[in-house]
Amino acid sequence: MPTAVALSPLPALSLSAAQTLIEATAILAFAASGLLEAARKKLDIIGVCTVVALAAFGGGTLRDILLDRRPLFWVEHSSWLWILLGLSLLSMLFLRGRHFKPTERAIQWPDALGLGLFTAGGTQLALTAGTPVIVAVVMGMITAVFGGVLRDIVCNEIPSAFRDHRPYAVCSFAGGWCVVAADHFGVVDWLGLAAGAAVAFALRAMALACDLRLPTWRGD
Amino acid sequence: MPTAVALSPLPALSLSAAQTLIEATAILAFAASGLLEAARKKLDIIGVCTVVALAAFGGGTLRDILLDRRPLFWVEHSSWLWILLGLSLLSMLFLRGRHFKPTERAIQWPDALGLGLFTAGGTQLALTAGTPVIVAVVMGMITAVFGGVLRDIVCNEIPSAFRDHRPYAVCSFAGGWCVVAADHFGVVDWLGLAAGAAVAFALRAMALACDLRLPTWRGD
Amino acid sequence: MPTAVALSPLPALSLSAAQTLIEATAILAFAASGLLEAARKKLDIIGVCTVVALAAFGGGTLRDILLDRRPLFWVEHSSWLWILLGLSLLSMLFLRGRHFKPTERAIQWPDALGLGLFTAGGTQLALTAGTPVIVAVVMGMITAVFGGVLRDIVCNEIPSAFRDHRPYAVCSFAGGWCVVAADHFGVVDWLGLAAGAAVAFALRAMALACDLRLPTWRGD
Repeated sequence: MPTAVALSPLPALSLSAAQTLIEATAILAFAASGLLEAARKKLDIIGVCTVVALAAFGGGTLRDILLDRRPLFWVEHSSWLWILLGLSLLSMLFLRGRHFKPTERAIQWPDALGLGLFTAGGTQLALTAGTPVIVAVVMGMITAVFGGVLRDIVCNEIPSAFRDHRPYAVCSFAGGWCVVAADHFGVVDWLGLAAGAAVAFALRAMALACDLRLPTWRGD
Repeated sequence: MPTAVALSPLPALSLSAAQTLIEATAILAFAASGLLEAARKKLDIIGVCTVVALAAFGGGTLRDILLDRRPLFWVEHSSWLWILLGLSLLSMLFLRGRHFKPTERAIQWPDALGLGLFTAGGTQLALTAGTPVIVAVVMGMITAVFGGVLRDIVCNEIPSAFRDHRPYAVCSFAGGWCVVAADHFGVVDWLGLAAGAAVAFALRAMALACDLRLPTWRGD
Repeated sequence: MPTAVALSPLPALSLSAAQTLIEATAILAFAASGLLEAARKKLDIIGVCTVVALAAFGGGTLRDILLDRRPLFWVEHSSWLWILLGLSLLSMLFLRGRHFKPTERAIQWPDALGLGLFTAGGTQLALTAGTPVIVAVVMGMITAVFGGVLRDIVCNEIPSAFRDHRPYAVCSFAGGWCVVAADHFGVVDWLGLAAGAAVAFALRAMALACDLRLPTWRGD
């Protein structure tokens, strides 16, 4: 019986650790995409920090507000603010002295990685909070897509997720259902997370590599 | 005494039923306005679903966040997400094969209906939550107007509510005060809701039909 | 002992009073900046009221949503809605009959005052809520900067805080750290608030007067 008591928090703990690891990797990937976008737009230091923070925390913050989870990730783990502030300053010092021209292509890969990881983490988190599965998938999409949407709005671009005809949110949608299916069939949490992230990333990578297009309206 | 106990939840239930019915009609009306706008802009399937969902749930979600109500409507009634997803896919399949050109005029009428219904529902809901009357009216306006505002922002248009000089939010404002007045004078809930919705819709319809204009700055 | 009981709520009360006074002054300053901006854009009455309300309450509302504080300031003190509605109507009646051309310069000073006051109030409030210091400083910046950001978005301008190379959010950042330092060294609350507000305002005023610029990317 004491064994059961001692063991019972373990799965919860390991899930939490997996979620934290995934959030950390995704944050750095999205922060990098935000930094590249801000550098392309030659924003000032405030603009760079804002875009980096929005790209990294925007989607997750919106998800937490919708689910009424508090404290927010960056309030609880406030050292992340120092890390992103330091990275932004260092990158700006390092980059502004050079003729550095990050291409749109260079932004796509960290962005695809963040898409996969945030999809899996956000969907899992909503499932843990007990939402219906369709809501969990939507929350995964919001986590993954709205960081980029807010990044693009601040950079005064129409969000590429709604403008670009290549699949983006659709990949997140598919990845979210993998996490839901894994949860439904009782697969270990980290495996479901990994599968969802891999599916969303692979679909996005395939869409980029093969230049896939979503069906359009007649006459486009 | 048991009778009193049995009867007491009845008014609350019927109010709740009236609110649900109103929300459902308004959701479909606003979803239709979002669908027509997305079709006009020839967005891809993700864009269509996003704009439909924002138009339908955006205002109510913002109101619920401001009032700190959870779960959100579309989290609690998640079947609505399936309904809107199915309707979006069906409409897109049906519409993209045709030379379908929804005019701005066609969007105006479901939009006016949604304006009336969301105003009444939102104001009543805020009153039930115990907010001051002016806040309840503002919450009704937010419920009614911000779905359209978010729809327009995603479609990269300046929100018509702030740009158009024809009365829009003003109609919602008037309808909200009807709900407040009905509540103040102890009118049955469903009658107050119907009156508020009718006033807001009638004012908006009149403004459209007679091409009424709000006063402008000198020199406009 | 009864004395201690009677005295203990006093510091809390005076802090609360100082916070209320600061919020009120800052609200009027930002409302004025919103009114001038709306007048420059010749918005209609709904646009004027919306921009005034967003400029005045937008930053604080976003901070409260992020910190999960309820009721919101304008829900609790709903008489402010009446005040701003009345001021907007009066100003519009008064201004539209004249050849009134508020310059960008005229908006800068109430804006700088609001920046200082909202920074101090927002940072102090987040500290009171027990957030880490970096989060408190960020909350102060959000309180001070996002009212203006939302005002600019509604007026269809790129937020000046991210576009303008003159220090704006940076002044708020510095003011926030003053409040944190005052709190850390046990300075009386109102003094810390005044110091933070003064530092942020003075830095912004200096930046405007001396036309200081943030470092830019090479080749700008």
